[in-house]
Amino acid sequence: MKYIRDDLKDFTPYLVEKKKYDIRLDANESFLKYNNEILQKMCTALLKTDFNRYPDADASKVCNLYLDYLGIKDVSIIAGNGSDELIQIIANTFLNNNDKVMMLDPDFSMYGVYTKLAKGNIIKFPLDDNFNINVDTLINEINKNNVKILFLSTPNNPTGNITKQDDLLKIINNSNCIVVVDEAYVEFYGESIVNEINNYDNLIILRTLSKAVGLAAIRLGFLLTNNELYKQIYKAKPPFNVNSITQNLATVVLENKDIIQENINIILKEKEFLYSGLKKINDIKIYKSYSNFFLIECDNASYINNLLETNGIKVRYFGKGRLKNYLRINVGSREENISLLNVLSR
Amino acid sequence: MKYIRDDLKDFTPYLVEKKKYDIRLDANESFLKYNNEILQKMCTALLKTDFNRYPDADASKVCNLYLDYLGIKDVSIIAGNGSDELIQIIANTFLNNNDKVMMLDPDFSMYGVYTKLAKGNIIKFPLDDNFNINVDTLINEINKNNVKILFLSTPNNPTGNITKQDDLLKIINNSNCIVVVDEAYVEFYGESIVNEINNYDNLIILRTLSKAVGLAAIRLGFLLTNNELYKQIYKAKPPFNVNSITQNLATVVLENKDIIQENINIILKEKEFLYSGLKKINDIKIYKSYSNFFLIECDNASYINNLLETNGIKVRYFGKGRLKNYLRINVGSREENISLLNVLSR
Repeated sequence: MKYIRDDLKDFTPYLVEKKKYDIRLDANESFLKYNNEILQKMCTALLKTDFNRYPDADASKVCNLYLDYLGIKDVSIIAGNGSDELIQIIANTFLNNNDKVMMLDPDFSMYGVYTKLAKGNIIKFPLDDNFNINVDTLINEINKNNVKILFLSTPNNPTGNITKQDDLLKIINNSNCIVVVDEAYVEFYGESIVNEINNYDNLIILRTLSKAVGLAAIRLGFLLTNNELYKQIYKAKPPFNVNSITQNLATVVLENKDIIQENINIILKEKEFLYSGLKKINDIKIYKSYSNFFLIECDNASYINNLLETNGIKVRYFGKGRLKNYLRINVGSREENISLLNVLSR
Repeated sequence: MKYIRDDLKDFTPYLVEKKKYDIRLDANESFLKYNNEILQKMCTALLKTDFNRYPDADASKVCNLYLDYLGIKDVSIIAGNGSDELIQIIANTFLNNNDKVMMLDPDFSMYGVYTKLAKGNIIKFPLDDNFNINVDTLINEINKNNVKILFLSTPNNPTGNITKQDDLLKIINNSNCIVVVDEAYVEFYGESIVNEINNYDNLIILRTLSKAVGLAAIRLGFLLTNNELYKQIYKAKPPFNVNSITQNLATVVLENKDIIQENINIILKEKEFLYSGLKKINDIKIYKSYSNFFLIECDNASYINNLLETNGIKVRYFGKGRLKNYLRINVGSREENISLLNVLSR
């Protein structure tokens, strides 16, 4: 292929399996659907949408509502097509050719993909055997390598572990780089650092409506940062990136935000149920999770994954590398969790 | 700002004016709204959407419907958040650091923006005084400069002129680069080259639902190419890039595609009305347009633009460079066109 850029020649894209499963516990989605009252309000919002007009380029209304939902002010915010687009915008803003980016191993794989697309070089920092960060070593590696951006999810996907707030602030304080804290799953844990944004010149926080808020279908994420960084990041934001209907439907949900906390409570209750069921299964190790999924370790991960697939249940199987003997399973509905536990108990 | 990449330090982002105008004739949008029957079908589609689940990563259903709408087969297709995202994906696929990209001057400015974001270098090829391409010179410049990608819109935005099919195929045939033909406005002209896709190893065509189809709000564009290029471009496509509701609403419109042609006919009729009105205005030159807008030349473009703004009418004013003395005005509804002509006639 003579035209493609040199460093993508052997690159394998992120492939999404198209097979249908009765039960999907692989994508850390919410299992809850919105009720009819919300859906009817969404229809009303749809009918008011000017489909022939371009969206509000800055998604101002939904961004302001999201700040209200977080209960914070005086913070700059950018909406994106999921956190994915915002990760890409960050990489495009800060990376010169061959600049270095640090990510944890394991962590969300797309940090590496968007770094590569932006012509940066990824360095992976291994978590210890309990999936914790050796904070001093991390800071040292960042500064020694002239790292430009650190991406870090907490709660971590896929381990479910957290970086404690003290450690996080120590990293932000002492790392001579942009620190992107991805709080995609933070509602399940409860302790965000959004109030710290204006205390640092290098902190960016990512949030999403795809997990706890249960709106993965509309692809809406938010980037929160200080005004100085915002002005730089805005340079790499495509105009009109978030479509009107996503803005308008998210507005409906955020105007009815009580439902969000109710849904989180339901998911956390099911998490307890799933946890107590998984604990009874022989020969698997369950890691403590601060999120809506569990990472489990088992010698026969491939066998169990096949068994589950045969029974119409999809979980996240890694298949190689450090997580070869692990599966990641998100909390489903009571019926889904029972089906899963029944297969695992055989 | 110590973290931003060097070549964005002085970069000005594409700024969207937030002021409200009664009449918007600046963004080449359709002036037509969908009828209640379609809107009700959209509501039905909304109610069936699994909001808690991620979208179909490949937007397969709407992509296939779009190929049906075009009447073509055996072509590879990728959906994006407007053509914008697809331009960015193309730049990310093919550009090594500092690779060269050719665009016409004038042409759609975002080709330059996404080239810069992908760390490529843009070369502008000036159109002649009548906004035509000197084809042999263009081909010569492309090959001499080792250009990697040529972006070219036809009908051209903002001139409204076309590149004739013979010339276009000559360029594709003789340029040793990827040729991206942006057919955003082609429905107003009528002659697409989508049937040529598999005859070339270097041809990519962009289409959009934002113009003739009148769905700018949902941000949906399509990239059409041969299977070999598709496999490469797919590497730079973000997974789940197009949200479910955009996919589902576009599906409704494409399943009722007769409306699209009816709407185009209405717009073309209004275009005739606007053209005959503009012809009667003193001291402006109207360029022949194959699109849904007119480029007009006038010594007092700034004055006319201010006059229109004062009267609540927004048109595209360039303000500097080659198009300093030009305005771009898209076709509006009969009432909007009359309002425009009334102000211009004073």
